[in-house]
Amino acid sequence: MYMVYMSDEEILSASLETNFWTWSAQGKVNPIPVKRADGVYFWDVHGKRYLDFNSMVMCVNIGHGNQRVIEAIANQARELAFAGPGMATRPRAVLGKLLREIVPEGLTHFLYTLGGADANENAIKLARAFTGRSKILTRYRSYHGATHGALALTGDPRRVAWEPYVMPGVVHFLDPYRYRSTFHLNRPEVSEEQFSQDYLNHLEEIIQYEGPHTIAAVLLETVTGTNGVIIPPKGYLEGVRAICDRYGILLICDEVMSGFGRTGRWFAVDHWGVKPDLMTMAKGLTSGYAPLGAVAMRQEIYEFFMDREYVGGLTFNGHPISLAAAAAVIEVMKDEHIVEHAAEMGVVMKEMLEELVERHPSVGEVRSIGLFGVIELVKDRKTREPMAPFNGFSAEMNALRKYILEQGVFLYTHWHTILLLPPLIITPEQLREGFEVIDRALEITDRMVKTV
Amino acid sequence: MYMVYMSDEEILSASLETNFWTWSAQGKVNPIPVKRADGVYFWDVHGKRYLDFNSMVMCVNIGHGNQRVIEAIANQARELAFAGPGMATRPRAVLGKLLREIVPEGLTHFLYTLGGADANENAIKLARAFTGRSKILTRYRSYHGATHGALALTGDPRRVAWEPYVMPGVVHFLDPYRYRSTFHLNRPEVSEEQFSQDYLNHLEEIIQYEGPHTIAAVLLETVTGTNGVIIPPKGYLEGVRAICDRYGILLICDEVMSGFGRTGRWFAVDHWGVKPDLMTMAKGLTSGYAPLGAVAMRQEIYEFFMDREYVGGLTFNGHPISLAAAAAVIEVMKDEHIVEHAAEMGVVMKEMLEELVERHPSVGEVRSIGLFGVIELVKDRKTREPMAPFNGFSAEMNALRKYILEQGVFLYTHWHTILLLPPLIITPEQLREGFEVIDRALEITDRMVKTV
Ligand SMILES: Cc1ncc(COP(=O)(O)O)c(C=O)c1O
Ligand SMILES: Cc1ncc(COP(=O)(O)O)c(C=O)c1O
Repeated sequence: MYMVYMSDEEILSASLETNFWTWSAQGKVNPIPVKRADGVYFWDVHGKRYLDFNSMVMCVNIGHGNQRVIEAIANQARELAFAGPGMATRPRAVLGKLLREIVPEGLTHFLYTLGGADANENAIKLARAFTGRSKILTRYRSYHGATHGALALTGDPRRVAWEPYVMPGVVHFLDPYRYRSTFHLNRPEVSEEQFSQDYLNHLEEIIQYEGPHTIAAVLLETVTGTNGVIIPPKGYLEGVRAICDRYGILLICDEVMSGFGRTGRWFAVDHWGVKPDLMTMAKGLTSGYAPLGAVAMRQEIYEFFMDREYVGGLTFNGHPISLAAAAAVIEVMKDEHIVEHAAEMGVVMKEMLEELVERHPSVGEVRSIGLFGVIELVKDRKTREPMAPFNGFSAEMNALRKYILEQGVFLYTHWHTILLLPPLIITPEQLREGFEVIDRALEITDRMVKTV
Repeated sequence: MYMVYMSDEEILSASLETNFWTWSAQGKVNPIPVKRADGVYFWDVHGKRYLDFNSMVMCVNIGHGNQRVIEAIANQARELAFAGPGMATRPRAVLGKLLREIVPEGLTHFLYTLGGADANENAIKLARAFTGRSKILTRYRSYHGATHGALALTGDPRRVAWEPYVMPGVVHFLDPYRYRSTFHLNRPEVSEEQFSQDYLNHLEEIIQYEGPHTIAAVLLETVTGTNGVIIPPKGYLEGVRAICDRYGILLICDEVMSGFGRTGRWFAVDHWGVKPDLMTMAKGLTSGYAPLGAVAMRQEIYEFFMDREYVGGLTFNGHPISLAAAAAVIEVMKDEHIVEHAAEMGVVMKEMLEELVERHPSVGEVRSIGLFGVIELVKDRKTREPMAPFNGFSAEMNALRKYILEQGVFLYTHWHTILLLPPLIITPEQLREGFEVIDRALEITDRMVKTV
């Protein structure tokens, strides 16, 4: 295949020799040399099998090694491997048609990007130009990407690392995160509706302070991802939509992680019937088979640019191979009823999560929607003291992660939490297989629980 | 192939129905519905053939439809379509090895990105972290990409459109652009060496004003691309290197457009033997067959991050299909001696450009290096009044562009210039074919030339 011969055994050392690893200290990386992947599993060069509970990077929603998508990529490469972003191509025509059928009603046009970060960057450019306003409101417990604009939008500490250099004009507000709400600790008497209302009032307060006429958009992860699978409480998302409407502010939903069946619906917004003005996608859009993101927009926003130039774009936007991969992924998802399957498996996973709560004192809370789940680990259920500090590590969490990986389950832990995002094609047996490992692993953190 | 049937005739209308076009007013786009592409040509759905004098988006350096690259993509999709950015994979190992052999000596490690913009964004992050300084110096006549950080780096008017929102910390200085140098108009007695020295002194003056200890890096397009194929005059690039060394400032060379054989060497810096601390690539890296960018860095910069986390990365960084495409492209370029061929064809193109100067009064100047050329069109050779205003259009330039496209030559015009970046595999006959069309087209602009 390559002229340079590279044996399986050399892959790791040769990669280490020349690669600079993102999100890492170079001396501490421990990459898995991946040889192949199929369904919910992947294998390293030594034949060790991993059950993929993170869909690689929260993206391989349809599972690994899907032949239809692979052949769609190969066919597109043969038919037309590349055309510029200003060209009309078959996959561009096909994908637009397919997307229109699955996105929330009213979203009619699609700007294709390379991933989630630049999808969000383009969404706020569209919002700023359309409204003529400058500020964007996003939440503290959000991740919107790592390009300089997307990083400014991000609320979590990954932004803080680059604070002086990020784009100006972003204001962060608080998330309706009940388990760790500063204002609601030990107030179980507050109803879910009231809780939502408190956080809607908070948003409105911030809007007043900032000046509604200065705010172009509110940008939210519909369901917050890495920062804790925070699911909008009753009435919250509808409330945000109403506030935006009241002040002429656009609502942008970031469905990069929550879209494409992850929550048991095509998009998370579908659970609440909320229609964003702009919606961003990536990850599940191609199930990772090729790099692609997209911004879906309302007809009105498209029309605003009929005579005005949209000043933005990248060389590889709308790459035919990426568009073809996305089209094939959507067809596979529809054909194989993957979204419906995810909803069913979501019920199964929820039960398994509940079991863990019963069995393990270190489990503080579990949350899930579809196949999008989180386990919050605590040293004390009463005080909710987390198993690792905010934005930090702990020996226990490291030991837990190490054990799980050794046992052949690949998943993502974030601070004191375990995220659960298996491919949507997973079976109950395969879910069980992973949960059994997690169940054993939690004995490590259980030992740290403070006894009274 | 797709479940959605889409005839050739529908591609254009269906694309227009759902697509949002970058860098465009939506009501004014006129996309070519591309059906297939081979070598230096592509065809639309009506069978019209275009000679590609822009390598699509200045990227298809090895030409369209290369079977080895297509099969490398198909094979990689079958072997392992996706792995996360933290995984070691065969194409990652192979590409690193291939890149090390072709980049300037001393660049040892590679951070893979999705394109040129995020390559530049990562390069400046690396420079800021490594030096502990904040400011980046770039030139006015530069384009470094359209994400918010890359846009701030960009000096040309595409930045200005988004000025209030771009990343802080960038200072722009002047380019050694002799044909339009404010300080050198009508001073032909100034030697090239003195001209370079004047602009080096200018850079040093700006560094003094800004404070050397605040400047992390100077970032340059080695040969400026869209803003006019501005080739470093004698001594200039070596002088910039020396100034950077004097003040502990890193030199970052943006070889997104000038790299991968475009100038008749692997990288433009090779013409002057200058070794940058960081070098960014994209476009020609995969010849457009898949989205990919990269930052090459010195060993010392890599080592700086041995124990420190590098805070940055995107989901699709290091995508196996993109890495495999790049590896195949480099192998094809080496195997088929494409860089050497580009150098030879560069001589042929230079002659053709000189002919145009002789034949057409509207040609003010031509410049080229390898297969990277520009024609500057003027209304008056003496005053050098451009055929279209800075950052603007003119009826003549529009008519010229329209004629050339109608005649089946696809190329890029920018304000008052025509850019020439054919695939590097072009033959003298194919060059002649394109230049004959340009020759006829220039009669349009010749008619606008002011006669004394
Ligand atoms: C919610 C959300 N938005 C945006 C992004 C950024 O996407 P990408 O990494 O493709 O740029 C991510 C990535 O993790 C994400 O989870
Ligand atoms: C010199 C240069 N740098 C950077 C870029 C940005 O590359 P991309 O469009 O892949 O982000 C370009 C694109 O035209 C370029 O010409």
